[in-house]
Amino acid sequence: MPNISQKASDMPSSPIRRLVPYADKAQAKGIKIYHLNIGQPDIKTPETAIAAMKNANIDVLEYSHSAGIASYRNKLAAYYQTIGIHITVEDLIVTVGGSEAITFGFMTACNPGDEVIIPEPFYANYNGFAVLAGVKIVPVTSHIEDGFALPPIEEIEKKITPKTKAIVICNPGNPTGYLYSKKELEQLAEIVKKHNIYLFSDEVYREFCYDGATPHSVMNLNGIEDNAIMIDSVSKRYSMCGARIGVIVSKNKEFMAGIMKFAQARLSPPTIEQIGAEAALDTPQSYFDEVIKEYVERRDVLYNGLNSIPGVFCPKPSGAFYCVAKLPVDDADKFCQWLLEEFEYEGQTVMMAPASGFYSTKGVGKDQVRLAYVLNKESLKNAITCLKVALEQYPGKISHSEKIKNLSSIG
Amino acid sequence: MPNISQKASDMPSSPIRRLVPYADKAQAKGIKIYHLNIGQPDIKTPETAIAAMKNANIDVLEYSHSAGIASYRNKLAAYYQTIGIHITVEDLIVTVGGSEAITFGFMTACNPGDEVIIPEPFYANYNGFAVLAGVKIVPVTSHIEDGFALPPIEEIEKKITPKTKAIVICNPGNPTGYLYSKKELEQLAEIVKKHNIYLFSDEVYREFCYDGATPHSVMNLNGIEDNAIMIDSVSKRYSMCGARIGVIVSKNKEFMAGIMKFAQARLSPPTIEQIGAEAALDTPQSYFDEVIKEYVERRDVLYNGLNSIPGVFCPKPSGAFYCVAKLPVDDADKFCQWLLEEFEYEGQTVMMAPASGFYSTKGVGKDQVRLAYVLNKESLKNAITCLKVALEQYPGKISHSEKIKNLSSIG
Repeated sequence: MPNISQKASDMPSSPIRRLVPYADKAQAKGIKIYHLNIGQPDIKTPETAIAAMKNANIDVLEYSHSAGIASYRNKLAAYYQTIGIHITVEDLIVTVGGSEAITFGFMTACNPGDEVIIPEPFYANYNGFAVLAGVKIVPVTSHIEDGFALPPIEEIEKKITPKTKAIVICNPGNPTGYLYSKKELEQLAEIVKKHNIYLFSDEVYREFCYDGATPHSVMNLNGIEDNAIMIDSVSKRYSMCGARIGVIVSKNKEFMAGIMKFAQARLSPPTIEQIGAEAALDTPQSYFDEVIKEYVERRDVLYNGLNSIPGVFCPKPSGAFYCVAKLPVDDADKFCQWLLEEFEYEGQTVMMAPASGFYSTKGVGKDQVRLAYVLNKESLKNAITCLKVALEQYPGKISHSEKIKNLSSIG
Repeated sequence: MPNISQKASDMPSSPIRRLVPYADKAQAKGIKIYHLNIGQPDIKTPETAIAAMKNANIDVLEYSHSAGIASYRNKLAAYYQTIGIHITVEDLIVTVGGSEAITFGFMTACNPGDEVIIPEPFYANYNGFAVLAGVKIVPVTSHIEDGFALPPIEEIEKKITPKTKAIVICNPGNPTGYLYSKKELEQLAEIVKKHNIYLFSDEVYREFCYDGATPHSVMNLNGIEDNAIMIDSVSKRYSMCGARIGVIVSKNKEFMAGIMKFAQARLSPPTIEQIGAEAALDTPQSYFDEVIKEYVERRDVLYNGLNSIPGVFCPKPSGAFYCVAKLPVDDADKFCQWLLEEFEYEGQTVMMAPASGFYSTKGVGKDQVRLAYVLNKESLKNAITCLKVALEQYPGKISHSEKIKNLSSIG
């Protein structure tokens, strides 16, 4: 039998999906599972997008332009103008989801063996994109005690080597829900300019900022027009994860010419779902007002509920629809598996993503989990109750005093 | 400004699209262009596929399973059974077009720097997939005089080195329209088994075989179950190029586990177009009967027309909807450009793809072009007339006697 490649061996399995077989077994036993483990929102896709796809008058389902349907690109550029991101249609190429945008971005920015610096915890799939492009991720740890703020800029700068080609952030952040301040972004801008490297900013959760917080785009940082790369997608904004329509944006012409060559090789993004994405741009503000109101309420249920459980700590997320919580357990991977394999409370249990998959540094975040608030409030309340009972019963529980000891040994 | 990667520099621009700016200018002058340069069929997408996408009842456009929607995978496996390809649902993973299938295939089979052997001329985008995966393509030239039959198997075997990980064929072939015989495939099977390498077969044109010719799938070759990788797609079969739904098939479990990890990283193929692809499997045989009748008639118009022009030679394609023709010109790249820049006949001209982009060996195929018969017969007849007049007027024409001399010097 022929061998498979090193890349195929190195490629990480999805940490978010590792627990699925245990969940399947629990379900087979008739246990109701509250799925807080995945970022698939239950929010309805805007009617305007669905209607456009239904009403598309198609005789021959043709390739689109490799950079995306012209009318969609134009309307997308206009949309960015309205939210204060001043780009033109030449600065953007439509991709097959944000996933392809990041993969092509890494491939255009980096040679195999080059490095990208990413504050951890970070979206686990970045690991996969890095393996695809042969790139090494160099993590800089952010801390739950600081609410996952940007680590001190000197710590990040210390990690820059001649092989470093980019710093990558997700803003607002998956899995942390942290929203970078303008000052933090300006610090990043200064060092990418100084070291002549790229700054990738994954801004797919832009529309989901709470409590009056304002997102700052990488495209609006002065003096780094040739360094700034923005990743975006319709997946979360319009609850259209299945459309697989993303975009990569940069004012760096040479970089975009590189992206275009990769885009030509794969021919085009899906045609009908681009039609849906174009129509989605007409979604009225009232849709977002409602969705944001809903997410804020859910966040508050989850945030307050988690912090009311003895020994649990969760910083308040300002954006996206995730939070990372620290639990009084020996090992969150074991705990999450135990929840599915051995626990139930009134026929229910909770599925969460162990945070270890979001850290690149071995052993960090071992007692943390990521929770996505993609369920309604009632379900979230039930999930919190389950979790509280589970933490009382879990054999690997760490007592409050041990936890304080551990915290102070970290700090 | 930060540099771009070597890969982004090496990535070939599409040779098929290089002439587009000249075509745009000709069009702006009011000249009608017969587009024989691209493989975008004008054939209607089956009504059943369009209707399924229109009628899909979607509230939340969710991610699908990374391997594809379960019902689609099951139905696809059943479809292969009906055409005598005996695979199960575990042997297939749905991809974003055939493009992604080949890219993931190369990445799973090869380490950077490894080699794949491909008979040339071959589909130009294979170059792009190879650069993406960091793989080197080693061409073996097939000859127009033999109708582009498989080169002698010893010639192929001679190219195998310790770095060779696969032989790649397209069957029926783009750009040649050649259909490999069972004997040719068995020869390939023997050497991939002997050298413990993969055999990739791109079978996206399977349904388009003419004059009673039967396609033989790589999946039906005995004794190479762990070597055989089949690539397929709905793009050409159902004239659904814009759906971006392909599939990769293999009985090699370890190989498919590698593919699955890449598939998880990019989350899922587009959901709505998978629904369309699933429904397309119900397309009645009468649709194909009509389409094949149409393609055969078109092929005959083109084949007979081309060979009736003095100095032009075109072997008869047995499948797909392309042919490669040899023209009495100094340089087909120049000629194709001249057709758009300087020529017109009664306000019309022809756009073709110079074959040089389909050869990997420098200088080979310089007087050849690829023509796609994706226009109706009337247009094809007009295109042939244009081409005949153009060849009378083209300054770089090579006379019949020079041509014979050149041919005999090739041997």
